[in-house]
Amino acid sequence: VTLLEAVPNISEGRVQAIVGEIASALAGVAGVRLLDVSCDPDHHRAVLTAAGPPAALEDGLVALCRAAIERIDLRLHAGAHPRLGVVDVVPLVPLAGAAMADAVAAAERLGRRVGEELGVPTFLYGEAARADDRRTPAALRRTGLAALAAAMRAGELTPDYGPRRVDDAVGVTLVGARGALVAWNVQLATDDVRVARAVAAAIRERDGGLPGVQALGLYLESRRQAQVSVNLLRTGPTSLYAVLERIRDEARRRGVEIHSSELVGLMPEEVVLRAAADALRLPGLAAAQVLERKLGA
Amino acid sequence: VTLLEAVPNISEGRVQAIVGEIASALAGVAGVRLLDVSCDPDHHRAVLTAAGPPAALEDGLVALCRAAIERIDLRLHAGAHPRLGVVDVVPLVPLAGAAMADAVAAAERLGRRVGEELGVPTFLYGEAARADDRRTPAALRRTGLAALAAAMRAGELTPDYGPRRVDDAVGVTLVGARGALVAWNVQLATDDVRVARAVAAAIRERDGGLPGVQALGLYLESRRQAQVSVNLLRTGPTSLYAVLERIRDEARRRGVEIHSSELVGLMPEEVVLRAAADALRLPGLAAAQVLERKLGA
Repeated sequence: VTLLEAVPNISEGRVQAIVGEIASALAGVAGVRLLDVSCDPDHHRAVLTAAGPPAALEDGLVALCRAAIERIDLRLHAGAHPRLGVVDVVPLVPLAGAAMADAVAAAERLGRRVGEELGVPTFLYGEAARADDRRTPAALRRTGLAALAAAMRAGELTPDYGPRRVDDAVGVTLVGARGALVAWNVQLATDDVRVARAVAAAIRERDGGLPGVQALGLYLESRRQAQVSVNLLRTGPTSLYAVLERIRDEARRRGVEIHSSELVGLMPEEVVLRAAADALRLPGLAAAQVLERKLGA
Repeated sequence: VTLLEAVPNISEGRVQAIVGEIASALAGVAGVRLLDVSCDPDHHRAVLTAAGPPAALEDGLVALCRAAIERIDLRLHAGAHPRLGVVDVVPLVPLAGAAMADAVAAAERLGRRVGEELGVPTFLYGEAARADDRRTPAALRRTGLAALAAAMRAGELTPDYGPRRVDDAVGVTLVGARGALVAWNVQLATDDVRVARAVAAAIRERDGGLPGVQALGLYLESRRQAQVSVNLLRTGPTSLYAVLERIRDEARRRGVEIHSSELVGLMPEEVVLRAAADALRLPGLAAAQVLERKLGA
């Protein structure tokens, strides 16, 4: 069977009951397996991880969008993490038996339904992007929702699906196809967000940093800590441990130590193994050397 | 079904054909799965990992001992790793569905057969030990084979099974029951074995170092490198990354850097996860956060 992973990010991370209802809308569709729910009150964002065959997952994600639109008012939303919509991004990832083309096709079908059935302007990104300036959520988010809405009103910007008119309570939704990534936050032992921003700028690929790394410096109100929020995009070139070492060194140059880190959602096994291999100076470490994997094979 | 793991260590690590024949004797018994063969020419030792139901594994291990006795002459053996026999140690480890009592019972049956059928003096160690001074292979190896043989001749030492007379070509065999451990070698960027010995002394539990850590300093002739050879005995108190950090710090105090590390045999998944969690400052990391594990559950 063809299996996809979906990692919808919704703009609610404080009220568990709301997140639970929205997650239930997704999980309530037969064939969808909800694997993880990560809520962050400072980001004011929840990251859900689910898996299933494309058709079931698309039905579940439309239900999730409908539930989120009913329960979240973007005009009342303020969180540390940038966002453009009530359902901000919905990446689709090919799992066992699936190719990237399956994820792209699912993103196109889902984008069309969110645009046409729910009336939300929808942009395709990642491998599903139809223009180079729509490759990453960051590129689409750069100017913020108000500027995006104005550009659509002015006819300078057309969503891939749905109306050009933005409902301020709902925003727009980015639907994409991509490979597995790791979303990982590193807290610094300081309340100075400028340190986190400087570190993020030093490590992110876009500004000449580590290949495959996206990073933002954020301030966590509830913990009074600065955070480097990292996406490791490709599992190839950079290990998570190499990212940690770089963050540690860049923070130390500014007199700050790492406090701790946390995972958002799930981590592909290959990423765990590469991090351990790199940290332990053990270049050959592979799943074939893990007892349980060898026994299971 | 009750499943045990066996990790026989044999005193041949240079001639692949001999190791292959001995491994085939083990793998040739129906029900035994040979999972890994790690050969080290400097240690002049091979570490085999196999799994199976107790009865099949015991038959396979008796066949392995017989094949090793036919092919290896301990009088001609010289390797960096200490050893007492052609088949030096045979630890049995409970896997899924098995309790430590199953491993102890298997060690007792195997010890009796190696002693009585093959005429090799056999000592039980680990959880199967019948005396506190036989708890670890290191305790039994401390004086070396010649002193052990002399003590047996003098009637001061009695093996748990088999004759008191040692055949110098065969030596003695230690058969034990224990929990999963990690055998892991860390090479130093120096040819000075005294550094490796000093680092090993600083990190091993016996001398006040890290809980659960056994360590030896060895010299690798073929690589002209000093090596800290580590057994991490219990997966609880100390992560493999904590061991690496301690080795790094102790070596640096002596002006030496780590060159690389290598695994001998297989590593329990829990150990990989703890190492990654510790290295990434990610305290909560568990198998439940690994995508493939979550999907498989």
